Amino acid sequence: MIPRYTRPEMSAIWTPETRFRIWFEIEAHAADAMAELGIIPKEAARTIWEKGGPATFDVDRIDEIEREVKHDVIAFLTHLAEFVGPDARFVHQGMTSSDVLDTCFNVQLVRATDLLIADVEALLAAIKRRAYEHKDTVCIGRSHGIHAEPVTFGLKLAQAYAEFDRAKQRLEMARAEIATCAISGAVGTFANIDPRVEAHVAEKLGLAVEPVSTQVIPRDRHAMYFSVLAVVASSIERLATEVRHLQRTEVLEAEEYFSAGQKGSSAMPHKRNPVLTENLTGLARLVRSMAFPAMENVALWHERDISHSSVERNIGPDATVTLDFALARLTGVIDKLVVYPENMQRNLDRLGGLHNSQRVLLALTQKGASREDAYRLVQRNAMKVWRGEGDFIAFLKADPDVRKYLSDADIEEKFDLGYHTKHVDTIFARVFGEA
Amino acid sequence: MIPRYTRPEMSAIWTPETRFRIWFEIEAHAADAMAELGIIPKEAARTIWEKGGPATFDVDRIDEIEREVKHDVIAFLTHLAEFVGPDARFVHQGMTSSDVLDTCFNVQLVRATDLLIADVEALLAAIKRRAYEHKDTVCIGRSHGIHAEPVTFGLKLAQAYAEFDRAKQRLEMARAEIATCAISGAVGTFANIDPRVEAHVAEKLGLAVEPVSTQVIPRDRHAMYFSVLAVVASSIERLATEVRHLQRTEVLEAEEYFSAGQKGSSAMPHKRNPVLTENLTGLARLVRSMAFPAMENVALWHERDISHSSVERNIGPDATVTLDFALARLTGVIDKLVVYPENMQRNLDRLGGLHNSQRVLLALTQKGASREDAYRLVQRNAMKVWRGEGDFIAFLKADPDVRKYLSDADIEEKFDLGYHTKHVDTIFARVFGEA
Amino acid sequence: MIPRYTRPEMSAIWTPETRFRIWFEIEAHAADAMAELGIIPKEAARTIWEKGGPATFDVDRIDEIEREVKHDVIAFLTHLAEFVGPDARFVHQGMTSSDVLDTCFNVQLVRATDLLIADVEALLAAIKRRAYEHKDTVCIGRSHGIHAEPVTFGLKLAQAYAEFDRAKQRLEMARAEIATCAISGAVGTFANIDPRVEAHVAEKLGLAVEPVSTQVIPRDRHAMYFSVLAVVASSIERLATEVRHLQRTEVLEAEEYFSAGQKGSSAMPHKRNPVLTENLTGLARLVRSMAFPAMENVALWHERDISHSSVERNIGPDATVTLDFALARLTGVIDKLVVYPENMQRNLDRLGGLHNSQRVLLALTQKGASREDAYRLVQRNAMKVWRGEGDFIAFLKADPDVRKYLSDADIEEKFDLGYHTKHVDTIFARVFGEA
Amino acid sequence: MIPRYTRPEMSAIWTPETRFRIWFEIEAHAADAMAELGIIPKEAARTIWEKGGPATFDVDRIDEIEREVKHDVIAFLTHLAEFVGPDARFVHQGMTSSDVLDTCFNVQLVRATDLLIADVEALLAAIKRRAYEHKDTVCIGRSHGIHAEPVTFGLKLAQAYAEFDRAKQRLEMARAEIATCAISGAVGTFANIDPRVEAHVAEKLGLAVEPVSTQVIPRDRHAMYFSVLAVVASSIERLATEVRHLQRTEVLEAEEYFSAGQKGSSAMPHKRNPVLTENLTGLARLVRSMAFPAMENVALWHERDISHSSVERNIGPDATVTLDFALARLTGVIDKLVVYPENMQRNLDRLGGLHNSQRVLLALTQKGASREDAYRLVQRNAMKVWRGEGDFIAFLKADPDVRKYLSDADIEEKFDLGYHTKHVDTIFARVFGEA
Repeated sequence: MIPRYTRPEMSAIWTPETRFRIWFEIEAHAADAMAELGIIPKEAARTIWEKGGPATFDVDRIDEIEREVKHDVIAFLTHLAEFVGPDARFVHQGMTSSDVLDTCFNVQLVRATDLLIADVEALLAAIKRRAYEHKDTVCIGRSHGIHAEPVTFGLKLAQAYAEFDRAKQRLEMARAEIATCAISGAVGTFANIDPRVEAHVAEKLGLAVEPVSTQVIPRDRHAMYFSVLAVVASSIERLATEVRHLQRTEVLEAEEYFSAGQKGSSAMPHKRNPVLTENLTGLARLVRSMAFPAMENVALWHERDISHSSVERNIGPDATVTLDFALARLTGVIDKLVVYPENMQRNLDRLGGLHNSQRVLLALTQKGASREDAYRLVQRNAMKVWRGEGDFIAFLKADPDVRKYLSDADIEEKFDLGYHTKHVDTIFARVFGEA
Repeated sequence: MIPRYTRPEMSAIWTPETRFRIWFEIEAHAADAMAELGIIPKEAARTIWEKGGPATFDVDRIDEIEREVKHDVIAFLTHLAEFVGPDARFVHQGMTSSDVLDTCFNVQLVRATDLLIADVEALLAAIKRRAYEHKDTVCIGRSHGIHAEPVTFGLKLAQAYAEFDRAKQRLEMARAEIATCAISGAVGTFANIDPRVEAHVAEKLGLAVEPVSTQVIPRDRHAMYFSVLAVVASSIERLATEVRHLQRTEVLEAEEYFSAGQKGSSAMPHKRNPVLTENLTGLARLVRSMAFPAMENVALWHERDISHSSVERNIGPDATVTLDFALARLTGVIDKLVVYPENMQRNLDRLGGLHNSQRVLLALTQKGASREDAYRLVQRNAMKVWRGEGDFIAFLKADPDVRKYLSDADIEEKFDLGYHTKHVDTIFARVFGEA
Repeated sequence: MIPRYTRPEMSAIWTPETRFRIWFEIEAHAADAMAELGIIPKEAARTIWEKGGPATFDVDRIDEIEREVKHDVIAFLTHLAEFVGPDARFVHQGMTSSDVLDTCFNVQLVRATDLLIADVEALLAAIKRRAYEHKDTVCIGRSHGIHAEPVTFGLKLAQAYAEFDRAKQRLEMARAEIATCAISGAVGTFANIDPRVEAHVAEKLGLAVEPVSTQVIPRDRHAMYFSVLAVVASSIERLATEVRHLQRTEVLEAEEYFSAGQKGSSAMPHKRNPVLTENLTGLARLVRSMAFPAMENVALWHERDISHSSVERNIGPDATVTLDFALARLTGVIDKLVVYPENMQRNLDRLGGLHNSQRVLLALTQKGASREDAYRLVQRNAMKVWRGEGDFIAFLKADPDVRKYLSDADIEEKFDLGYHTKHVDTIFARVFGEA
Repeated sequence: MIPRYTRPEMSAIWTPETRFRIWFEIEAHAADAMAELGIIPKEAARTIWEKGGPATFDVDRIDEIEREVKHDVIAFLTHLAEFVGPDARFVHQGMTSSDVLDTCFNVQLVRATDLLIADVEALLAAIKRRAYEHKDTVCIGRSHGIHAEPVTFGLKLAQAYAEFDRAKQRLEMARAEIATCAISGAVGTFANIDPRVEAHVAEKLGLAVEPVSTQVIPRDRHAMYFSVLAVVASSIERLATEVRHLQRTEVLEAEEYFSAGQKGSSAMPHKRNPVLTENLTGLARLVRSMAFPAMENVALWHERDISHSSVERNIGPDATVTLDFALARLTGVIDKLVVYPENMQRNLDRLGGLHNSQRVLLALTQKGASREDAYRLVQRNAMKVWRGEGDFIAFLKADPDVRKYLSDADIEEKFDLGYHTKHVDTIFARVFGEA
C-alpha cells in the first residue's frame, strides 16, 4: 500500500483514527448490553457514550501509552479513561483484547468490501455501456493469438461483464464470510462474558454472531476472503491483458485514453503505451500473492497464537486498497477506451477472407463434394490467399471446380458476417437480461 | 497424485476411460438435440447411442490414432466412428474441441466435488460424534501455546465442526462455480451450432448453461474452484496441527490410533508418532499450492490460448485426489482418536490452579480491595505456586490478607470448573443446532 | 507428472527400482566403512555387495512386506535379507531410516539436476546457433507492445542466451545445495554411528557431508533447490511468451515449426497455433507453484517431523520431470523456429519511419533549431504519417522548414538502420565471449 | 511495510530522497563518462556535480512537476535543472528512463542486501555465543514431537548456525544477482549511448555491467533475489517455531526474554507468551509470499512492459524492510533467550529412561540374547515404565532374565548420557570450524 496506488475512501478505513473509533463502538455497545443485563450500572454505559462518543482520540497519546504498557488495547482503554472518567472501569469487563481486535478487523473488512462491491458495480456499468455501444462492432476472434472467426467487440465486453458479475457475487460471498462478531472471552467459552453481549454488539454493527470462536475468529474465513480478492484480481488481469493486446502497434483495435496534455507523444504519435493496463497487471500479481499468507494463517496453534497478526496488519489494508485502486483504474480504462472499428475491420480483412474457409468447406461437402475433394479445392485457393496473391472470395468464384458446386450467391453467402453475429442478441440477453 | 495418496473412487473419475465415456455422452446428447432441431437425421442420433452406448473405447487405440493426427478429440471421434459407422459423420457437427473438453472437465470436477462433499459429511459426522462424547471433558485452553483458561475437548471439536461445515458450504459454492456447460463453437458465437444444443446437453448432464463463453469456459471459475480446495486444505492442516500438538510427549492429551499389529513401538512404547496428521500437513501444502497456477490460468489471451491445459491436466486430478484422500484420512484420525481425559486433567492441574488467578483478582476487587492490593495479593501467592511450592488454592486460603476479603467458600467457588463450562450447551446449540 | 509431459531418462530416476538400488548402495557403502572400522566383519560387507549388487529387487515383494510392517525401509531391508542371507543383520547397523531416505533423495535430485543442466546446455546451443544466424536480422524492438526502435532478432536471442546461462549457473548452485549426505542417526548425534561412515558413503556417492543434521537433512536446502527450478521455469515462460507474441497473426515474425503431416491446417493455412509455447507457459506455472510447499517444508518441528515427505514424494519427481520436459520442448521450438525476416522488415516499415522521429528531433536541435521549433516540425510531419498519408522521410525532405536545417543526406542518415545495430558485435562479445 | 515492523537504516534506503540522490549520481557519473568521451563539454559535467552534488532535492516540488508531466524521471530532471542551470541540457543525453530507474533499483537492493548480510552476521554471532554456552546442556531430541534420544541445546543452535550460514551465502549470491548496471538506451542497443558510459557508471557504483539488457535489466535476476529472501524467511520461521515449541507450558525449556516492566504477567506468572517468535512466523509468511509476484514479473513482453513496476514499488521496500526487522528481532530473541537446563533435565527424565530402550535391546543381543527374547525383555519392562510404575533402569536391574545377560554396570553404562554427546565436539568443529 503506497500512496501512488491508494484511494482516500478505502485508506480511511485503515487509519488508526477509524480503528480506535470502531474499538470505542464495540466497547460502548458491549457496555450497553452489560447495563441492560445488570452487570454494570446503566449510568456508566450512558456516560461512556456521552464522553467517548464525541471524543477525538489522540493517536500519538495512545502510541505513547502503548510504548509503556506494550499492549495496544490497554493503551486505548487507558486513553479512553482520560475522557470517560471513573466509569471507565466498567468498560471491557470480562472481555479479552481479541474480542475487540477481531471484531474490529471484520468491521473494517466489511466496510472495505462494500467499497469493493461498489467499485465492481461501477465497472460493470462502464462495461455494459461500452458493450451495447459496440454490440455489433465486428472484429476477428482469436484463439492462440491467431485469427479464428469473427466476433463483436460487444461480445468481448459481455464476457468481461459476466466475469465481473461473478466477481461481484464472490465479493458478496466473501463479505458474508467475514461479517461476524466474536465477544467470547479468553478462550471462547464466555466464562466471563454473557453471550447476549456478543449478540447485541453483533446486531448493532450489522454482523452475525460467530457460532464458535476460540480466543479469535477462525481464520479460514479470512483465507477465503483474501482468496476471493485474489481471484477478482486475476479477472482484472484478464481484461487488462485483453486491452494490452488490442493496443499493440500491429493490432491497434483499441487504446487507453490519452489525455490531450499528456506528455511525450508529440513526436512519436504511435508511442501511446498501455501503461494503465500494464500497471493493473502488476497490481493483480500483488493482490494475488496475498492469498497465500492468509491461507497459512489458518492453522493457528490451539485456541490461538498471534502469528496471523503481522500478516493481517499488512494484507488487510494492502489487498483492499490495491484492489480498490485497480478496480477504479480499470473502470476508467474501459469507460474512456478509444475503440477503432476501422482497424478491427482492417484486421478482419487481413487474411483475405480465409476465416471463412471452414464454412466453404462445409458448403462444398453439403453440395455433394467428397470430403477429400472439398479439402483440396479449399486448400488450393486458400494457399494463394496466404501467399498474398489476392482475396479468397475472388479465387473461389474463379475456380471452375468450385463453381461446379457453388454459385456466386452461394459463395457470397458464406462470406456474410451476419452468420457469425446472429446470436449476439441471444448472448446479450443471457448476460444482461435483455438484448 | 501418487498411488500412496489416492483412493479408487476419486481416481476413477480421472481415467481415460471415464473421460472418453463423458465425451461420448456430450456428443450423443448433442446429436439428440441436433436431431430434434432437424439438423441431423433422427436415425443417426439413435444409431450413435445404440452403437456407442455399449461400446468399450480402446484407450490404446485412441492413443495410437492421436500419435498420428496429434489431436485428442479427433482421435476419439475416429475411434468412435469405428463403432458407429457412417452415421459418425453426424457427430460433432459445428462443435469445437473445447466444447467437449471443457464441458467434460467440468463434469469431472462436479463428480469430484460430490465425492469431496460426501467426504466432508463423513468427517463432520465423525467430529460430531466425538464432540458429544467429549462435550464435558475439561482440558486447558491454550493461547500462544501457554495455558490460559479451561475449555472442553468437545468445544475444540465443535470449532472443527463449524469450520468444516463452512468447508462444506464452500465446496457447494465451488461446485456451482464449475457446474456449467459450453457448446458454443470456435469463438463462442454459436455461428455453427444452435444454442439449443447447448441447453439440451447442459440439462442432460445436470449443468447450467455458461451464459457467455469464448472458445472456452472462463477460467475465473476454475481459479475460484481450486482456491476453495486450497482453503479446505488449510482447515485440514489446522485440525491436523491440533492433533500433532496434543500428541506431543509432554502433552499427550490425545493420540492417533495405533493398530495392535503396527510395528516399531514394542520397545519404545512412547514412540507413537502422529504420522497421519503430519502427512496431512504436507498434503495440505500440496493442495494449497495448486490454487496458484489456477489463478494464473485466468488471463488467457483473447478468445483463448491453451496454456491452462497442461496446468489442469495435472491439478484437476492431483488436487481432487489429494484432498479426497486427506479428508478420508482425517476422518479416520478423528474417528479413532485416542483421547486421554486423565492427562487433560493432569495438564490442567499442572499450574496448581493458577489459571484461576484472574478470577480471584476480580473477586478481591469486587469485595473491596483496591486494584493494587488485589494484584499484590494474587501475585505473591501465584509466585509461590509458580516456583513449585504448592497449590494456589491452599496458599490463598492460608493468606490472612486474602481472608479479609474472601471466605473459603468464596475461594473455592473461584476454582469451580463449572464456571468455565457453563456455556458449552449454548455453543453446541449454535454449532449443531442442538445442545 | 503425467506421461504426456515426461521424458524417460528423467522419470527413470524416480522409479522404485532406482530408489531401491540407491538405498542398496548407501547401505553397502556404509557396511564397507563399518567393516573398515571393525564394527562389522569385513566378510559381511563383501557378502552384501556380492549378493545384493547383482540382485534385482522385486518392487511388488517389497510393497507386500511394507503393507505388513508399514515401514518402507524395513520392508526393503527384509527383502534385501532374502538375497544376502544371515549377514544381512550387519546391514543398517546404528543407522536410522532417514539416513537412507534423505541421502537417497539427494542422490536423485543430483542426478536430476545433471540432466537439467544438460538440458540447459542443449538449449543454449540451439539459442546460440540461431542467434548468430539472425545476428543482423533487423526487426522492430517493442516496449509496452508498441514499436520503439530497431533491434535484431539475434539480439533477442542473445538476451535469452544470457538468461539461460544464468539459469545454468543457478542450477549448478542448486545442485551444490542438495548434494549432501547425512548418516548421523536418530537425532543427528552419531550416538550409534561413527561419523567416518557418513564420510565414506558421501565420498562414494559424490556428495558432501552434511555438517550438522537432525534426523534429517535441513529442508532450507530443498526450498532453495525448488525455488531455483521455479525461477528457471519463469525464464522458460519469458522466451515462450516472446514466441507466442511473434507468432500472432498480425505480427508473424516467427512461427513454431509445423511438421508437414501435422493435421488441421490445410484449409486454414494461417491457423498455425503456438501450442508448444502455450504449453510451456502452463508447465512453467506448474513448476513455479511447487516452490511454495518446498518453502513451507523448512520449519519442521524440533529434530524432524514427517510433513515434508508427502510434499517431496510429489514435487521431487513432478518438478524435475516437468522442467526437463519443458527445457527439451523449448530447445526443439528454438531449434526449428521458422523466422520470417521479410515480415520483420514489413512490420518495421509499418510506421513509415516514425521510429526515427527522435533522431530527427535531435538532429534539428543540434543544427540550431530551438527545442520548441524542432518539436513542431517533427510533429507536423509525424502526424501526417500517422494518419497514413505517406512516408516520414518523404515528408521531411519536402518540408521547407526542415530543409533549413537538414539536407537530404542529413535526413537519410537519420534513417540508416546501421545506427541501431552498430553495437550488436559489442553485445554478442559480452554474451558469447566472441562477436 | 508498516512502521511497527520497520527499522530506520533499511527504510532510509527506500525514501524518495535516497532515490533522487542515486538518480543524481547515475546521471552525474554518466555525464563524466560522456565528457571524457567528448560527447558533452567537460565543463558541463563539472557543473552538474558542483551544483547538483550539494543540492537538497525537494520531493514535494518534484511531485508537483510529476503531476503535470506525468513522468517521474522527467520531473526529477526538470527539478535538477533548477539547480544546475543551462548545462542541465547535457544531463541524460541518449539515455532512457529505465537506465536510471533500473540501475537505481539495483543500487537500492545492493545496499539493502548489505544490511541484510550484516543482520545475518549479527544473528550468527548471537547463535554461536549461545551455542557454546549450551554446548553440553543436554535435552531430549524429538522427532514427530515425541521424545527420541538426547541431544544438547548447543547442538540445536549449531543447526541453526549452519542454516543461517547458508542464508548468508545465499544473500551474497542474491546480491551478485542484482548488482548490475544497465545504461543501454530505449531497446538496449546502445544506439544513442556509448557502452563506455555504462561501464563507467557501473564501476563508480560498484556494479557489474549487465551483459545484455532490453530496455530493462532482465527480471529473472530479481525473481532469484526475492526467492532467496523467501528462503531466508523460511529459516527464520524454523528457528522461531523451535522457540515457540520450547516455550509451551508443558515443555518450558526456554523462554523469550520478558522485561521486568513488561505488563500483564503479575497475576499469571506462567502467561509469558512467545509473541516475538509468533510475530516472526507471520513476518516469514509475508516475505515468502513476495517471491511469487517477483517470479511472475520475469515474462515481460518483448523488450519490456511496465507490469513489474507496481510490484517492485511494493515488494522492493516491503521484503527487505520486513526481513531486516525479522532478522534483528530474531537476533534479540536468541541473544536474550532464557534457557532452563533444569526443565530440560526434567523433560528428559519424564519417560523414566525409556529413551535408552534401544541401546538396552542392542546390548542384550550383543550379549547373546536372541532378537525375539531381547525384545520381549525390553518390552515388558518398558511397559511398566510407560504405565508410570517406576524407572526403567530399576526395573531392568531387578529383572532376573535381564541379569542373565547384563550386569548392573552394563545396564548403567547404557544410561550414560555421554554416549549421546560424544560427537558434539566433532559437529561443532564442522559447523564453527573449531570445537
